[in-house]
Amino acid sequence: MRNISEDTITQAVLASMDGCRNARLHTVMTSLVQHLHAFAREVKLTEAEWFAAIQFLTDTGHITDDKRQEFVLLSDTLGLSMLVTTQNNRKPAACTEATVLGPFFVDGAPVYENGDDLSNGALGAPCFVRGHVRGVDGEPVVGASLDVWQSDEDGFYDVQKTASEVGEMVHSARGQLHTQDDGSFHFRSILAEAYPIPHDGPVGHMLDALGRHPWRPAHLHFWIKAPGYETLITHVFRQGDQYLDSDAVFGVRSTLVVEWVKHAPGVAPDGTSMSVPFYTLDYDFVLNPASAGATV
Amino acid sequence: MRNISEDTITQAVLASMDGCRNARLHTVMTSLVQHLHAFAREVKLTEAEWFAAIQFLTDTGHITDDKRQEFVLLSDTLGLSMLVTTQNNRKPAACTEATVLGPFFVDGAPVYENGDDLSNGALGAPCFVRGHVRGVDGEPVVGASLDVWQSDEDGFYDVQKTASEVGEMVHSARGQLHTQDDGSFHFRSILAEAYPIPHDGPVGHMLDALGRHPWRPAHLHFWIKAPGYETLITHVFRQGDQYLDSDAVFGVRSTLVVEWVKHAPGVAPDGTSMSVPFYTLDYDFVLNPASAGATV
Repeated sequence: MRNISEDTITQAVLASMDGCRNARLHTVMTSLVQHLHAFAREVKLTEAEWFAAIQFLTDTGHITDDKRQEFVLLSDTLGLSMLVTTQNNRKPAACTEATVLGPFFVDGAPVYENGDDLSNGALGAPCFVRGHVRGVDGEPVVGASLDVWQSDEDGFYDVQKTASEVGEMVHSARGQLHTQDDGSFHFRSILAEAYPIPHDGPVGHMLDALGRHPWRPAHLHFWIKAPGYETLITHVFRQGDQYLDSDAVFGVRSTLVVEWVKHAPGVAPDGTSMSVPFYTLDYDFVLNPASAGATV
Repeated sequence: MRNISEDTITQAVLASMDGCRNARLHTVMTSLVQHLHAFAREVKLTEAEWFAAIQFLTDTGHITDDKRQEFVLLSDTLGLSMLVTTQNNRKPAACTEATVLGPFFVDGAPVYENGDDLSNGALGAPCFVRGHVRGVDGEPVVGASLDVWQSDEDGFYDVQKTASEVGEMVHSARGQLHTQDDGSFHFRSILAEAYPIPHDGPVGHMLDALGRHPWRPAHLHFWIKAPGYETLITHVFRQGDQYLDSDAVFGVRSTLVVEWVKHAPGVAPDGTSMSVPFYTLDYDFVLNPASAGATV
């Protein structure tokens, strides 16, 4: 520690943590320091690049507030979020796969009844969503809680519009509901559309410098909780979307890609008479028993 | 890219950067993504730990402003700063070694003449500093620019006190001067004392959780520039300091540790009659020719 050099610095940092009483923290930080140093050595990071990194992180911190989480975007666009999601949600093949939470979930969304319209003023083509939540043996999961959220036809979530346009939080295209006695659920919302992640900040500049686009394929978010089952955070993706093979946050899993069926004006599945074209989406979820793995 | 899993995510992220036109950025980001993912896999980072990391970075960003750079502190305390410094400042054995810049350098400090008192009101025991700047062949480096900065006896740099106590920037214990015709310099300042890095924020909490203290051994910062020579950013450390073997930012190099000599009241080296005890520090710097390596 009294003669730090390029060759001794890593060991010196590791030795400094010998007094750490939290064994897990010690393990995580030991690995982090080793990989951080290995990275800096491998590319022989320059002082100018180091300074640019400090500035990038500073800018990322400064654009982050209670409405925008640029560090989550950074983790998402570097594939870290999806890696953490997948390695913590290993499930039997019969179960619905998990994907990233993303930065737009809001706790305490309005509670709806089955059949309600969750769009609550959000603009988009009408869409009727139906499905079941079941266990791996096919048993219906009754009273499961579903959080559903999505962007509107302009590609914005309610939470993105709140700060600048509305002033206070108005939840739209977002809600909670529960499965019925047969494990089924159904609600009305709007058609999911592709959208770019917020790209006017540091992460957008990074994507641009890397020759990457900021778009995500159209999807509908679900967060499903039921006693006795593993919590499932996932999306359903729209078949045919041009960004399915280049999702900016690497969230696509082929088992989650589904056809949204377009219908001419007429009677919707719930009996509503529709004077405009509308879409239907049918998707069943299969939950893993809680004992089989970690929960969120 | 349409079926992302734990096994395919890293390759998918790397493939997404195929269109990057900046070869160096591509190299750096390829390495960064690989090491970031390897870290997350090695420790099987959990979702709760991922979220704690997002929160830590957010807090680090929010406490950072134009007076406080918590990301530099983070880099310093993880040894990254010292690694980047050392691998970019490889010098012949005859040259003065470099160490970290730290977060307290200020551009545009007051210019002083040799013999001036740089303390400018900063409290501490008087200290008279003398030395030479030379090249590797012993030649004097005339007109070299020296930026000097240090903390006061309470362990604070001027820039730390400015925001809360002074209102506008008053430079103290900080200044620029130039070497004379024989390559020599001399100035008066105050005794360098050990101090803790700012530890009331996320980095302080991290150090505490790791069982580490936030102290740095007493030191005096130098940033020396001269045409034809490599820029030198370094410290001189005070022999006998209790933190020389546990510097919170891993900056100590044994060749930079020097005796600050204490004197009873009497005549100082510059002829000043001192009624209180005072210190003297003598240190000569040797610069590397500019052609021999990278400059800052």
